[in-house]
Amino acid sequence: MTKITTGATMSLDGYIADANHGGFEYLFQWYTAGDVEVPTGFPDMTFRVSPASAKHLHELQEQLGVLVCGRRLYDITNGWGGRHPMDKPVVVLSHSVPEGKPQEDENFVFVSAGIHAAIDKAKQIAGGKDVGVNGGTIAQQCLDAGLLDEVAVDLVPVILGSGIPFFGQLENAPVQLEGPISVVEGIGVTHLNYKVVPKK
Amino acid sequence: MTKITTGATMSLDGYIADANHGGFEYLFQWYTAGDVEVPTGFPDMTFRVSPASAKHLHELQEQLGVLVCGRRLYDITNGWGGRHPMDKPVVVLSHSVPEGKPQEDENFVFVSAGIHAAIDKAKQIAGGKDVGVNGGTIAQQCLDAGLLDEVAVDLVPVILGSGIPFFGQLENAPVQLEGPISVVEGIGVTHLNYKVVPKK
Repeated sequence: MTKITTGATMSLDGYIADANHGGFEYLFQWYTAGDVEVPTGFPDMTFRVSPASAKHLHELQEQLGVLVCGRRLYDITNGWGGRHPMDKPVVVLSHSVPEGKPQEDENFVFVSAGIHAAIDKAKQIAGGKDVGVNGGTIAQQCLDAGLLDEVAVDLVPVILGSGIPFFGQLENAPVQLEGPISVVEGIGVTHLNYKVVPKK
Repeated sequence: MTKITTGATMSLDGYIADANHGGFEYLFQWYTAGDVEVPTGFPDMTFRVSPASAKHLHELQEQLGVLVCGRRLYDITNGWGGRHPMDKPVVVLSHSVPEGKPQEDENFVFVSAGIHAAIDKAKQIAGGKDVGVNGGTIAQQCLDAGLLDEVAVDLVPVILGSGIPFFGQLENAPVQLEGPISVVEGIGVTHLNYKVVPKK
């Protein structure tokens, strides 16, 4: 069954970036902390992680059918040059279709009718695999709408002190989770996976 | 060797209380999530935790020689009725000695000369065991002063959305940690222990 999941690398104090949208030299140390090569989809970038993290990342990649992100990330990455590095189709929640792009092709689908419509579309595309929702605003909207099934945190040993929270100001806080339903100890990272307990 | 440690129950998004200094019905669910009784020092309150958490709590209690807290907590708890429930002496960082109290007895020592002096005093009292520093302001001061050796987090599966952070605005952020050096999976809680990497 298709699950709606979100995941991000997070500092121990709950941030996915520092206040200047940086801090990645701290957050992503685990990407180069091991010996097992993991291709990233970018030809000039290869991660080297622990065997446990490599297995974990491989399983995530296998389970994932489609991604959902916001227009801001799509624009920042310039549409990842045409195809997402994880080699999955991406549903982009966006008020408009970028100029010169079709509303839908095998790489990107632009949905303007809100988060429910974006998730519905993603489920259709997922082919029974999981829908991976981008952390930050989109994950918050999913949590608030009761659409999120699981939260995966790659918890890293740094205290940033301030920054961009994984889960900002939620309308429906507090959100009760269950678990962790899995704990994978990597080098420089602890992979924790939680189920979202539906609101009564 | 005496270690300076701090620890707290923390939500997945980094809070030790909600914005109204509450939220404990979410944070402390793990205290009643198991079958193993753990006395709290309060006659009318017994925790029931998982076997793994019970063992973990017992080891912490054994390692701990002395506590350090701020005057605010001392006043809120009314000096814990005369003795801290963990049955340890407490060094209280305070501008003044409470009326009618000695500056030092076997239960409480009041130190006004700042965080370094409070930690020095605590080390003397600890008798080779650990110094446990209260989360929040005192832990922040220790982190900023480079006095903290370890950070223990009881990570619980709830997203509070806002609240009182375990590690507020640090002067020396980011703080690099090492680990977790131990991971204990309880029921409704994951006990994570990190070393603080000294600043160069």
